[in-house]
Amino acid sequence: MAKEITPRSVDYSQWYNNLVIKADLAENSAVRGCMVIKPHGYAIWEKIQAQLDRMFKETGHVNAYFPLFIPKSFFSKEAAHVEGFAKECAVVTHYRLKNDPNGKGVVVDEEAKLEEELIVRPTSETIIWNTYKGWIQSYRDLPLLINQWANVVRWEMRTRLFLRTAEFLWQEGHTAHATQEEAIEETRRIIDLYTDFAENYMALPVLKGVKSENERFAGAIDTYAIEALMQDGKALQAGTSHFLGQNFAKAFDVKFLDRNGKLEYVWATSWGVSTRLMGALIMAHSDDNGLILPPKLAPLQVIIVPIYKKKEELDQISQVAGKLMEELRQAGITVKYDDRDTHKPGWKFAEYEVKGVPVRIALGPRDLAAGTAEVARRDILEKMTMPLEGLTSKIVTLLDEIQQQIYQKALDFRNANIHKVDTYDEFKEVIEKGGFVLAHWDGTTETELKIKEETKATIRIIPIDGEEEPGKCMVTGRPSHRRVVFARAY
Amino acid sequence: MAKEITPRSVDYSQWYNNLVIKADLAENSAVRGCMVIKPHGYAIWEKIQAQLDRMFKETGHVNAYFPLFIPKSFFSKEAAHVEGFAKECAVVTHYRLKNDPNGKGVVVDEEAKLEEELIVRPTSETIIWNTYKGWIQSYRDLPLLINQWANVVRWEMRTRLFLRTAEFLWQEGHTAHATQEEAIEETRRIIDLYTDFAENYMALPVLKGVKSENERFAGAIDTYAIEALMQDGKALQAGTSHFLGQNFAKAFDVKFLDRNGKLEYVWATSWGVSTRLMGALIMAHSDDNGLILPPKLAPLQVIIVPIYKKKEELDQISQVAGKLMEELRQAGITVKYDDRDTHKPGWKFAEYEVKGVPVRIALGPRDLAAGTAEVARRDILEKMTMPLEGLTSKIVTLLDEIQQQIYQKALDFRNANIHKVDTYDEFKEVIEKGGFVLAHWDGTTETELKIKEETKATIRIIPIDGEEEPGKCMVTGRPSHRRVVFARAY
Repeated sequence: MAKEITPRSVDYSQWYNNLVIKADLAENSAVRGCMVIKPHGYAIWEKIQAQLDRMFKETGHVNAYFPLFIPKSFFSKEAAHVEGFAKECAVVTHYRLKNDPNGKGVVVDEEAKLEEELIVRPTSETIIWNTYKGWIQSYRDLPLLINQWANVVRWEMRTRLFLRTAEFLWQEGHTAHATQEEAIEETRRIIDLYTDFAENYMALPVLKGVKSENERFAGAIDTYAIEALMQDGKALQAGTSHFLGQNFAKAFDVKFLDRNGKLEYVWATSWGVSTRLMGALIMAHSDDNGLILPPKLAPLQVIIVPIYKKKEELDQISQVAGKLMEELRQAGITVKYDDRDTHKPGWKFAEYEVKGVPVRIALGPRDLAAGTAEVARRDILEKMTMPLEGLTSKIVTLLDEIQQQIYQKALDFRNANIHKVDTYDEFKEVIEKGGFVLAHWDGTTETELKIKEETKATIRIIPIDGEEEPGKCMVTGRPSHRRVVFARAY
Repeated sequence: MAKEITPRSVDYSQWYNNLVIKADLAENSAVRGCMVIKPHGYAIWEKIQAQLDRMFKETGHVNAYFPLFIPKSFFSKEAAHVEGFAKECAVVTHYRLKNDPNGKGVVVDEEAKLEEELIVRPTSETIIWNTYKGWIQSYRDLPLLINQWANVVRWEMRTRLFLRTAEFLWQEGHTAHATQEEAIEETRRIIDLYTDFAENYMALPVLKGVKSENERFAGAIDTYAIEALMQDGKALQAGTSHFLGQNFAKAFDVKFLDRNGKLEYVWATSWGVSTRLMGALIMAHSDDNGLILPPKLAPLQVIIVPIYKKKEELDQISQVAGKLMEELRQAGITVKYDDRDTHKPGWKFAEYEVKGVPVRIALGPRDLAAGTAEVARRDILEKMTMPLEGLTSKIVTLLDEIQQQIYQKALDFRNANIHKVDTYDEFKEVIEKGGFVLAHWDGTTETELKIKEETKATIRIIPIDGEEEPGKCMVTGRPSHRRVVFARAY
């Protein structure tokens, strides 16, 4: 099975496409640009969801649900917003089908035309701020800290499973605050939360910063983002948190009475991560044999496979495996025993390897006789013989170690692929090799677009918390306060 | 606050609408027929989801995700199916907006017209069976036991929050089997699972059976359903499980090689419950003061409110409350301490009453001095004084008792409102009073529709597991094997 995956060295893009299919994560559907997320892929997404949801709730957020459809007129209320999304909107114009009078099956009933077209939400700021208008009267109603798990649609022309699809799943947080300060604090709290999640759960080191004006969310004052590096040296935006100022409050006339009895516009943030994270997870860690998953996001962390010829052997193994499973489960580990007689051990090994189960335990008669088990790590493809006695606590430690090591490997790779350059010529040369490139930029969209056109590289982030380092723009020579991070990106 | 809820005796329908708003569960959105599920309502839905999801997984099902859109042509492939849904479909015809050349904001870009219209899924049988075609080759690929949590759209003309909305949230299971027997077994397993959930979590007694041909799901061979009785004597369908035979396999040409090497069509089931359950939950148990929630589905099970005048009093109460909360949490109870100084205890009492928190604990200086707490039950609005010593275990028992008693009350009401009738005159009289009416019916759609037209009552279910009882149709006098269950329904 794994043989059908094109090696990364041959064609990274093809490798990714093959892997997504072979690991049973997702596939293209009959609807252009829309994917089917298969059970294995969805189980990983459920792990991502569960952890993020926990983190949102721990920071005081609650979930709610807003309509799938947005009236077209709402869209036009925030100028930058409509400009950003108008070209990729799925539009509902009718609400009924009927039998074709010419007998050609079913057709749209032209009499059931909507007075105002509805947009399938590409993001929900407009419908949500229209709703918040009714919820916010005074400072006592603030802050509103609401998140929504939902599907959204952006009509992308070139799509790729998980990375860019017309429909995708995501969470979108939409918060309302009494002060600018509090809203900015929330924006930063969330980008820190995303950073924590990316690094400690996805084992994905990220760079954190703000976007340039050109790369900002349509309607935002500031977009904070985290950027990860994929194995091919391309960057991937893994989460964004937007400080929206009073833009949407003004567009939807959402005011509140502050503590001094003064009527003020409300301050807003919005933030989201999507099934795109699945793409990042796959591309950052996996190898030519298939998926590699950090244990914290693996739906199945340990698989036990019996190796036997005779029924009595299987019975003995099953007894040992049963006890081991019970212990592992009590230690909070997700484990399965695959004693199917329809498939051979070799087939099973390949199957769990391509699907990225972090630890495989094989048990045969010889192991039982010796009181040992064969333990295989998916990440570095290494096999070890371990005593059955005390195996559970060793597996717990091993899973932690794997989580750490996957992160460390990605971190080493990322760090080895950050380059500082001072001239545009050097930039052009280095950007070809991939990775993040730190360079001085004069802060103008004009220069940014010139660089993008000439090198396909974009500004991924402008660091916020680091030191200042005065310099000169590599293109125009104009002054710059600090280096910004460029890369070619997904 | 509670005063603004119209009493049930005055106008049951108005009571429901008031309650949904006052308890902060949901509201109408700016999009016709689409609701906003507010945080408190969504938190209850999350409890419903979590429990059902656990039950699906325990019975071997996995989750996946299929596209929001369905190509129009897929819809026509199963004749009964398209007939059933064509009249309530939201149709996407374009994929882009543009600036109006006449300067009137944003308009649909007529150049971005889809070649084939896309239907926003009203249910996913067609897109899923088109996908299953690629997943199923042999009996080894079966059964497929897949569930999806999703939003769906059915363009209803008259909508009501939770009960009937254009967009709603649901889960839809779609399973594929090698034999008819196995598919029927699955259909029944799920209706039993729904029954278990309704009775043991929602505290909602249900009648279980199959639908008449006229009330069947569009495309099903048999629809199993559970029906609950609301306080106004109207029935509400709380879940359905469909045996689809080979209808969708034939429509989408999904065949498999069976164990004997013979190519056969696959057998199918589908089943679902939706946010409509929220409507059932509200209407079955609540009273004129607001929401009553069975503890197992209450996002917040216990609220602790301090009663104090001086700061020192609050400090002492907070210490006791903190310890109590810790104990309750360790016992698996969701608890909150509301020490906000912006609202008075009376306001808080009313707030938690209308929102349906099952148990309220009030702690004042006198309680502390006496070593007691005032414990109030939301369901029967009764207050008790309980010793602080050992309070946690008493609360655990009390929550169980409340869960049981809410169920028992609903069961008693339901049982008191089941009537057997033998003549059509009697039927017409009894049906006016509400409740389930057991009567003989000749099994024809003609008679069923006549009854519906003349009395607004429909056949809710045909019992499956009960004894046979030969009789004569109350309308035509033709023979009948057993009584069927009629009611006016939501």
